[in-house]
Amino acid sequence: MSQTTTTHTSTLKLSTSAQSLTVQPGRLINTIHETALFGAKHSWGDDPTETGVCRLALSDEDKKVKDWFVAETKKLGCKITIDAMGNIFALFPGQKDAKPTAMGSHLDTQPTGGRYDGIYGVLSGLEVLRTLKENNYTPKYPIVLINWMNEEGARFPMALMASSVWAGLNTKEEIYQMESITDDTPVTVGEELERIGYKGDVDCSHLAMPIAAHFEIHIEQGPVLEREDKKIGVVVAVQGYSWWKVHVKGKEQHTGTTPMNMRSDALLAVAKMIVKVNEIAHKYDGMGSTGTLDLEPGVMNVIPGEVSFGLDFRHPDDSKMALQIKEAKESFAEIAKSTGDLITVEFEHIATQPATHFNKTCIKCVRESAEELYDKDDIRDIVSGAGHDSCATALHVPTSMIFIPSRDGVSHNPEEYSTPEQVHEGFMTLLGAVLKYDALREE
Amino acid sequence: MSQTTTTHTSTLKLSTSAQSLTVQPGRLINTIHETALFGAKHSWGDDPTETGVCRLALSDEDKKVKDWFVAETKKLGCKITIDAMGNIFALFPGQKDAKPTAMGSHLDTQPTGGRYDGIYGVLSGLEVLRTLKENNYTPKYPIVLINWMNEEGARFPMALMASSVWAGLNTKEEIYQMESITDDTPVTVGEELERIGYKGDVDCSHLAMPIAAHFEIHIEQGPVLEREDKKIGVVVAVQGYSWWKVHVKGKEQHTGTTPMNMRSDALLAVAKMIVKVNEIAHKYDGMGSTGTLDLEPGVMNVIPGEVSFGLDFRHPDDSKMALQIKEAKESFAEIAKSTGDLITVEFEHIATQPATHFNKTCIKCVRESAEELYDKDDIRDIVSGAGHDSCATALHVPTSMIFIPSRDGVSHNPEEYSTPEQVHEGFMTLLGAVLKYDALREE
Repeated sequence: MSQTTTTHTSTLKLSTSAQSLTVQPGRLINTIHETALFGAKHSWGDDPTETGVCRLALSDEDKKVKDWFVAETKKLGCKITIDAMGNIFALFPGQKDAKPTAMGSHLDTQPTGGRYDGIYGVLSGLEVLRTLKENNYTPKYPIVLINWMNEEGARFPMALMASSVWAGLNTKEEIYQMESITDDTPVTVGEELERIGYKGDVDCSHLAMPIAAHFEIHIEQGPVLEREDKKIGVVVAVQGYSWWKVHVKGKEQHTGTTPMNMRSDALLAVAKMIVKVNEIAHKYDGMGSTGTLDLEPGVMNVIPGEVSFGLDFRHPDDSKMALQIKEAKESFAEIAKSTGDLITVEFEHIATQPATHFNKTCIKCVRESAEELYDKDDIRDIVSGAGHDSCATALHVPTSMIFIPSRDGVSHNPEEYSTPEQVHEGFMTLLGAVLKYDALREE
Repeated sequence: MSQTTTTHTSTLKLSTSAQSLTVQPGRLINTIHETALFGAKHSWGDDPTETGVCRLALSDEDKKVKDWFVAETKKLGCKITIDAMGNIFALFPGQKDAKPTAMGSHLDTQPTGGRYDGIYGVLSGLEVLRTLKENNYTPKYPIVLINWMNEEGARFPMALMASSVWAGLNTKEEIYQMESITDDTPVTVGEELERIGYKGDVDCSHLAMPIAAHFEIHIEQGPVLEREDKKIGVVVAVQGYSWWKVHVKGKEQHTGTTPMNMRSDALLAVAKMIVKVNEIAHKYDGMGSTGTLDLEPGVMNVIPGEVSFGLDFRHPDDSKMALQIKEAKESFAEIAKSTGDLITVEFEHIATQPATHFNKTCIKCVRESAEELYDKDDIRDIVSGAGHDSCATALHVPTSMIFIPSRDGVSHNPEEYSTPEQVHEGFMTLLGAVLKYDALREE
């Protein structure tokens, strides 16, 4: 098992207390590989750990890993609560009876997912609790480890599903009706929660299940930390996104018989628009690209009469996001006009998610934890490109995230990989950050 | 029948002879509508003539129109020869026994074809022979009317099929094996020629069935004559085309987590290439466009890792065509390099057809015929954008073509349309041109 590190003990000196904690390097990566067996799929190497994981929300494999999670946290003395959306809260007691400090992420995956995305966050939290338990360390305040249900939105097509209900963005009743898109015979969220026994009695709400703060550790899913040789990304924000489908109509014409100056070539207009999106994203320091494009009639010697394409803008600053969209709309209209007499363009809005800015205190705890463990050069602030459950919790409670490097920036892919050392370094940062926050709450 | 003109008589004064010919305006358009019943399809208006025609090569409907064509030309005293590829030669005798002057085009259509493309050329030729017969006019040299088999290449995917065999570009044996692409159970050209009884004994060859010259009248299939309010296009050349499939590879990356400067966005590179093709075509006074584009994986938030697109260059000057292709290859390589580190580009050659330059004497006959009939302002030289059987005949004998306007430049579409007046004006030009050539041959 080339990716598995032998377990040995090490210590973390806690600057916030007189105490040192003994940690077990290598146990976390072993736990990751252990739980990956619930849904291991898509082998890409000779080692048994070199596979992806297919563990769709509320599937049989998801039930198995949930059962395992409940059993493991119970062993640590945690009190388990399952809410009405199947979120699992494992409460590790503190010295005081108050709202717990939370660590959370998700154990569900994409159909061709890896063994780190989400999973690493939940199991790092478990490793924190195991470490506290072994060291007989009782935090000042309770700590709750949360496994959020259906973060991926792969089987039931809504990302951050259960954390959004918890945050009050959606009602559980509307979500229960949502049908799966990966089953031959679609089933609903409500039916599947009942079937696997994870439709809890407690309301899914930040009021019924309050927390004091939320920390989430995750793989970066991008290439920045690896390229810059960093150990830890201190996540200060999650950029927003705005998705559009752009419909461009021109005129189907014969490529041989229609003079260049009598054409209304929808694809030529779209090509100019795609180039323009790139310019706009650079101008505003944001991101912009196109992942989908459909054209009609799609014949070698016919000028396309209709082209639709996806437009994906990102920005950590909502006001600059608005400028990106405004400039796209204006410039596309100009491009249509100047490319052909008959060309028209229409924007169809798909979805917009504003940017999330994390809590300064939580960010400070992460940064100080990392700086105590590693050189300053090994750490950098970073903006998350993708959404996470922490975007939902940040609407109500202090929240921040920690990133570790992803090999080649690959994610949502069986070959998703971070080294055992990186996995351990991230966990140590989370442990320190949570205990720092625990200490700060007392002040 | 709004598109049908009442038949009445008119005369054409022949400058090349002392004789005047009585013509029957309106008969040709009626003949067009009559034969359109063999395969009428895709109604687009209330009038019974407002339909398209679906008459795929060697289909039952194609047999019916061939049988009709043979019967009608026999009535005029023509000698019928059917060659081994199903081309029909209807020979109208002349005063001398020599190689005939040919008029030719095709009676097959696209699946969603109109009632003019090709058909107009054959039936105009028929109207010429009918006119000669009625006027008891015997040309100096024989005149042959040819119905070329499978010009469209819709059912059996090779355009100008039988005229290419006649020209010696392909052997009949290889063509006989070609399978249909529009039948549920593919059949071969050889089988279908036998089935409908049009596999003749005479070799399909410019040696076995020689002609002295070839005239073809056709709808423009483009918007130029209509926009410029011309009656007649004197076709001086057929531009060449060069078709390529361009394969661009980049890297699939997450649109949210991959910084702009770390991307290898295959679609962005392709967009720049499509814009560049347009610039190149304008620079060399040619044509260039893209009608097909496929991308992978085609997901909203994934940067396309692979894009393939069709590249269709046209030019009436082969040396400038070569420059267009050269510049595309060089600039695409630069675009790939400057757009992303991992982007590669490959050109796959599909087909190249050199330009055809028509015979000066034939062109002169057409131009003089038109100028005798109409104002000089009603006539213009034109380059054909699309290929025709005349491209095959031009390889061996003096050839030229005549165009009439196409409404909105529409072709390969049920709504293909030219007015009864335009149809008549073109026929008159053909009649004059062929008789002028007949007279010139004597000189």
